[in-house]
Amino acid sequence: MKILFEKADILFGDNLDVIFNGYLGIQDDKIIYVGEDKPTQKYDVVKDMSDKLLMPGLFNSHSHAAMTLLRGVGTGFPLQEWLFDNVIPIEDKLVPNDIRVGNQLAIMEMISTGTVSFSDMYVYPVEQIKAVMDAKMKINICRPILAFTPEDFPEKNERFIESLWLYDNYHNHDDGRIRIDLGIHAEYTSTEDSVRAYAVEAKKRNANIHVHVSETIKEHNECKEKYGKTPTKWLKDLGILETQSQFAHGVCLEDEDLNIIKEKGITIVHNPSSNMKLGSGFARISKMHDMGINVSLGTDGAASNNNLNMFEEMHLAAIIHKGNQNDPTILPSKTVIKMATVNGARMQGRLDTGVIKTGFKADIIAIDFNKPHLIPNINYLDSIIYSAQGSDVCMTMIDGFIVYEDGKFKTIDEEQTYNEVREITERLYEVYDGKKR
Amino acid sequence: MKILFEKADILFGDNLDVIFNGYLGIQDDKIIYVGEDKPTQKYDVVKDMSDKLLMPGLFNSHSHAAMTLLRGVGTGFPLQEWLFDNVIPIEDKLVPNDIRVGNQLAIMEMISTGTVSFSDMYVYPVEQIKAVMDAKMKINICRPILAFTPEDFPEKNERFIESLWLYDNYHNHDDGRIRIDLGIHAEYTSTEDSVRAYAVEAKKRNANIHVHVSETIKEHNECKEKYGKTPTKWLKDLGILETQSQFAHGVCLEDEDLNIIKEKGITIVHNPSSNMKLGSGFARISKMHDMGINVSLGTDGAASNNNLNMFEEMHLAAIIHKGNQNDPTILPSKTVIKMATVNGARMQGRLDTGVIKTGFKADIIAIDFNKPHLIPNINYLDSIIYSAQGSDVCMTMIDGFIVYEDGKFKTIDEEQTYNEVREITERLYEVYDGKKR
Repeated sequence: MKILFEKADILFGDNLDVIFNGYLGIQDDKIIYVGEDKPTQKYDVVKDMSDKLLMPGLFNSHSHAAMTLLRGVGTGFPLQEWLFDNVIPIEDKLVPNDIRVGNQLAIMEMISTGTVSFSDMYVYPVEQIKAVMDAKMKINICRPILAFTPEDFPEKNERFIESLWLYDNYHNHDDGRIRIDLGIHAEYTSTEDSVRAYAVEAKKRNANIHVHVSETIKEHNECKEKYGKTPTKWLKDLGILETQSQFAHGVCLEDEDLNIIKEKGITIVHNPSSNMKLGSGFARISKMHDMGINVSLGTDGAASNNNLNMFEEMHLAAIIHKGNQNDPTILPSKTVIKMATVNGARMQGRLDTGVIKTGFKADIIAIDFNKPHLIPNINYLDSIIYSAQGSDVCMTMIDGFIVYEDGKFKTIDEEQTYNEVREITERLYEVYDGKKR
Repeated sequence: MKILFEKADILFGDNLDVIFNGYLGIQDDKIIYVGEDKPTQKYDVVKDMSDKLLMPGLFNSHSHAAMTLLRGVGTGFPLQEWLFDNVIPIEDKLVPNDIRVGNQLAIMEMISTGTVSFSDMYVYPVEQIKAVMDAKMKINICRPILAFTPEDFPEKNERFIESLWLYDNYHNHDDGRIRIDLGIHAEYTSTEDSVRAYAVEAKKRNANIHVHVSETIKEHNECKEKYGKTPTKWLKDLGILETQSQFAHGVCLEDEDLNIIKEKGITIVHNPSSNMKLGSGFARISKMHDMGINVSLGTDGAASNNNLNMFEEMHLAAIIHKGNQNDPTILPSKTVIKMATVNGARMQGRLDTGVIKTGFKADIIAIDFNKPHLIPNINYLDSIIYSAQGSDVCMTMIDGFIVYEDGKFKTIDEEQTYNEVREITERLYEVYDGKKR
């Protein structure tokens, strides 16, 4: 199957240059042509992209997708009360099929706002994989270990076993769209033995590690009190940072932590909505970027956001640090777009996507610029960051397959998903028709 | 003309309570019925509002609407360079008709994202009034005075004369939809004589005063150096705060300023996008709210935002202060929605709108909740603030007239406006088809 987009403006290559009124050719799952001149090859389908910008699809680098079912739960509470008093009591009611449905809902939101791939950490991963495969989306998924007491570990712990089983059975599944990471929920939900044992398994597999690190000052300082070192140093000393790691949040990282992160090639996943909403604070993203640390962007779960819209995260990442540091020159638009695209792809170990260039996977979105808030458009990069909305995405293509176009979902039954979500939320809350009264 | 909305969820009354599956009746420009039971009266038109929320329309309390034509100009520069090196050279090329067209574009963006009324300060106000009247929208407009040297003032200055002429000829025009404020650009663009003379005229007319105050620390401190007092104290001492005043920004206000603001009943217009993007910083909105100061929300102009979407401003106002003060309990959703609705209406001197209740003006918007990011919806107020997007607005009614519905503009020719904007931007910039190359 060969698809040609014509009359398209295209954000192409590593430098995010713009081709105006150009052509983008796709064969099966790959980009085979990008240029200003009409290609001589014959294509099966030709699509007119007038007034539209083609750009790389977005990578949501940290989420708990099925928490769409907990959208808005605990709004207004600090992180610890939000988690333990509000979120966990509802999560205790979740059954495996809920996770499949919650992911379908999340995927609808993500693909309709330009996300092509996400990194996720939650429960019942096989149900999640089902939803992702049905939708023809991409995911890096981990089943994070938890160990509150030393007795929990290592060999007999179910989550530990499930986590490795998942890796050994699903890594690089579904033409590589499904990738498995190893995951540690956080320092404050782990023991030293558990992390040490996990490090051995991670190294054997050369597996990525996804972990929440220094999200709040409380967590960060309690670790220092308990162990005499920061969470980053603690993880390093336990030998878990020897493969590619990803730290979600990193709000309270110290200079010494950043040096370790730089040295170990760790990615920081910035989650601005969640960090603001929960009152966690400002990760030092501009400094990290200047140090050459790979920074990507995530939405976190819908209970702490309360949506999964990467255009919001790009906008926030671009503006909140300018406000906080009183410096409008930091984190220019191009830097932030890279965080949401190629930096996320690189973090996921997907070196064949995140950029529009020939030979790369066709993970592409189209933005409709025929909108009052996108005219005039004197700079595409600034328009994407400061003016565009997730709802301006009019086409999402993953591995060359169009999964969303002009408001229609091609791989998900919208009404059925809504009905299933309403049934589940009637059980989880005392609600009627998906609304709490 | 009588319109009944049925099967609607309705955010009604001063406390923003929710009626589920209710009825809202409108006669001409007023709300005549709100309730759970079907009214007995006959209506000319009945509209099914299943899956939709009716809520008060939004008030954009600070804008420079025609700056849509300068969308994105100077992005990445600090305020002074942004204004003097980037914005003003383009503004010098603007002719009167540009202002009409720039406003039409702004109005399209505003009414399609739920704004029913805006407070504006810019050039060629009569052209702006034309655009607002054609669109059947509401505006509070001022022609701000400027006086860089004492010789500029008072009696012979054209802007001074125009400002008062505008008030005397257009205040309460077009069934009250057009209201005129008096305006002072800022302390740093005024002389003491000019403000003193203006205060006399304001008092004669009991007119509102709209002014940029303490937007940046540079401006704030330079005033203190020059006059030995803050801009707020300077304005007070010149006698200009004796009528209802509105301070845009107020990022650097000191405790003593806040006391004056509270005492004089001044409204603070918070512009979070602009304050973040230009690196100005965080206005102390939570403290102002706790002091009982009226706080409303604005987008500022599209060159420092770069759009006019009040859903973005509500979202930012709700989250950035939580992040900055490390406190997720401040500025709950209800407070922020009031800032964007009734507080803005009150500031504009419109005491008959901003709330859905019988006898009030029918300034109402509908939000379509049949969207993946709005399901489940366990709390309407939190869903509006944290999940909803401007693009979820599916109907905007102003004074009982539907100006926007299901993506269609009822009072503006969309294609003609786009074409006119493209022609203007070809003149303002070296662009082709509205895009800079």
